[in-house]
Amino acid sequence: MSTFITFEGGEGSGKSTQARALHRHLAGEGVDAVLTHEPGGTPLGTQVRRWLKREGAVDPLAELLLFNASRAQLVANVIRPALERGSIVICDRFYHSTVAYQGYGRGLDMELVSAINDLGSQWLVPDLVILLDIDVERGLGRKRLKDRFEHEAHAFHRKVRQGYLEMAEADPQRWLVIDATLPRKRIERAIWQRVRGLAAGVR
Amino acid sequence: MSTFITFEGGEGSGKSTQARALHRHLAGEGVDAVLTHEPGGTPLGTQVRRWLKREGAVDPLAELLLFNASRAQLVANVIRPALERGSIVICDRFYHSTVAYQGYGRGLDMELVSAINDLGSQWLVPDLVILLDIDVERGLGRKRLKDRFEHEAHAFHRKVRQGYLEMAEADPQRWLVIDATLPRKRIERAIWQRVRGLAAGVR
Repeated sequence: MSTFITFEGGEGSGKSTQARALHRHLAGEGVDAVLTHEPGGTPLGTQVRRWLKREGAVDPLAELLLFNASRAQLVANVIRPALERGSIVICDRFYHSTVAYQGYGRGLDMELVSAINDLGSQWLVPDLVILLDIDVERGLGRKRLKDRFEHEAHAFHRKVRQGYLEMAEADPQRWLVIDATLPRKRIERAIWQRVRGLAAGVR
Repeated sequence: MSTFITFEGGEGSGKSTQARALHRHLAGEGVDAVLTHEPGGTPLGTQVRRWLKREGAVDPLAELLLFNASRAQLVANVIRPALERGSIVICDRFYHSTVAYQGYGRGLDMELVSAINDLGSQWLVPDLVILLDIDVERGLGRKRLKDRFEHEAHAFHRKVRQGYLEMAEADPQRWLVIDATLPRKRIERAIWQRVRGLAAGVR
């Protein structure tokens, strides 16, 4: 059974580490699992990621469209084909990041964000969203401030976190919220416990 | 009076030459005129343009979103500020190109194309659209086949041309259709005749 799992969370939440760990774990169990990330995962996505990191002043609407251009390419070339052949796909960030950062964080109109996200994701909804939740001050302290988003005010990141928590609360069946300050191995086990049932269906 | 003029047309129609000629003419008359183009006109737009020329397989939806990301950035950083200070802005291609190429040409859903174009252009509509109309075989013969679009079948370009002509017919007040096979100087004069009234308002 193909399954689509996304990792979400603020800066320094450790979600990329956990996405890689889950991928290794599934591969170790002989499960066909694909790990990818946003923005990126395709040549276009890699470019978009570079553009956004390099450019100082990208119009918020241009940014929203760019993220979704990258997403559309990733869904068409990587995620959909993998799901169609029955893989488990793990994606480090997906459209919920856009809702959290551009919608809750930057304050773009939520209906607009949703409409463009629907297009970019081609209406693909994750089966499971794993949110690594962390207090903003603690999360930002974990990694060096190095890109545009990380330079932005803590207030912004608090809105992002609040957005994630609201989305999780509104759809608790789909979302697994994990305290990102727990020991790494304990987080891995909590994720594995939730995913193993799905993985069993794939083998 | 700020005025927004776009040039449209198929490959080899000479629209870029005419856009430059009009810009020179306006500047020669002491009019504050800004010349820009799509995709491009901003650092992000230039990157998008290079990327689209180079890559073989872009998902059609990703392409639509990319063009409009570039457009949103151009409108926000170049076109709107120039119009707000009262300039005449000349843009070599704008959203009608997307309707013609992605809508009529590639057959993407027209409502979808319009909705994304509205966002990318931030609801900005040109005051005058100058269409350099040329027979597809003649237009393609004029320039070497060098980018993705130009490699595509003549059938595609015939749909693009048909699209342009339908749009012009539906909004004849806004569109000026010129036979691109006329001598270059004669085309320049025809354009100038239409624009001089607008230009007089700017001086």
